[in-house]
Amino acid sequence: MSSRAKLDVGQLNDLTFDEFFQRFQNIIEYGSLITASIWSHRPFRSAKHLHDHFCAFIDGLADDGKTGILLCHPDLAGKLSQAGKLTEESTKEQKGSGLLSLTDEERAFLQDCNEQYRKKFGFPFVICARENKKAAIMEGFNRRLKNTHSEELDTGIAEVKKIGWYRLTDLIEAESKL
Amino acid sequence: MSSRAKLDVGQLNDLTFDEFFQRFQNIIEYGSLITASIWSHRPFRSAKHLHDHFCAFIDGLADDGKTGILLCHPDLAGKLSQAGKLTEESTKEQKGSGLLSLTDEERAFLQDCNEQYRKKFGFPFVICARENKKAAIMEGFNRRLKNTHSEELDTGIAEVKKIGWYRLTDLIEAESKL
Repeated sequence: MSSRAKLDVGQLNDLTFDEFFQRFQNIIEYGSLITASIWSHRPFRSAKHLHDHFCAFIDGLADDGKTGILLCHPDLAGKLSQAGKLTEESTKEQKGSGLLSLTDEERAFLQDCNEQYRKKFGFPFVICARENKKAAIMEGFNRRLKNTHSEELDTGIAEVKKIGWYRLTDLIEAESKL
Repeated sequence: MSSRAKLDVGQLNDLTFDEFFQRFQNIIEYGSLITASIWSHRPFRSAKHLHDHFCAFIDGLADDGKTGILLCHPDLAGKLSQAGKLTEESTKEQKGSGLLSLTDEERAFLQDCNEQYRKKFGFPFVICARENKKAAIMEGFNRRLKNTHSEELDTGIAEVKKIGWYRLTDLIEAESKL
């Protein structure tokens, strides 16, 4: 998908629903329903405007929905990653941050962190790997494990929105930063 | 999936998130996010109780989200069906109602109805094929094409819930009817 030329805003608004749905289905991991829901809000003025609609949909969800969004994310350097079963987008992101080439010690450290985090919060640790290299991710685990459940629900969702922004701007020309 | 033994309620509540997500991911077509969101509401008392949570999540969505749910459904006997690209669940449902073995005239009639319906309402005609054979579906098109946008949003969503109930009770033992 990322090898295709990026769309400009005119092309974005010319897509049929099927084209729009296929291209943007995984802006939010497993969030096809969000992509389909955003469609009603055409025309979009910019990549940022489209992203705002993804964010508004997420913000409109109750805590069970926000938790559901986090639950749809894979563990960093976890089982799915080792089995090569991540989505195309997640593979690219985890690879870019160095998470697909770990030493045994690093992998053991991250697996331990994933477990502690899931045990405390009931959902996986979500971080925008495109903005964080391996060392920053490990530091993030240490810091965020001390947060409250409510703080981590908010932090995780903020990371989901950043991940979505990078995924969107792989596909559409963006004039602004997030 | 349907060849596996059905779960009883105890087994349902013993599933890990990954098992739950994989099994129930498509109770609502492309609605993985809904399935993940329902997880917070364990334990479930029955298939009906689980289904109630799917319905409550859908009812909590604004009109853009409900429209998004309808948009995720394929046209009956449409392009995806002819190309063999329906989800496993939709294939079974369309086949059961006779929609995968149409005469040329019937297919042309349905395609014309699909087009008229999409043009008027902006989303596809959704009907629970498990409760309707070919003739009833054709009659439904004629009747529902006369409805208002708001009536069809409600009718389509009510059909989505029925489809979800049949998909659920393929996977879990159910004592009650919907």
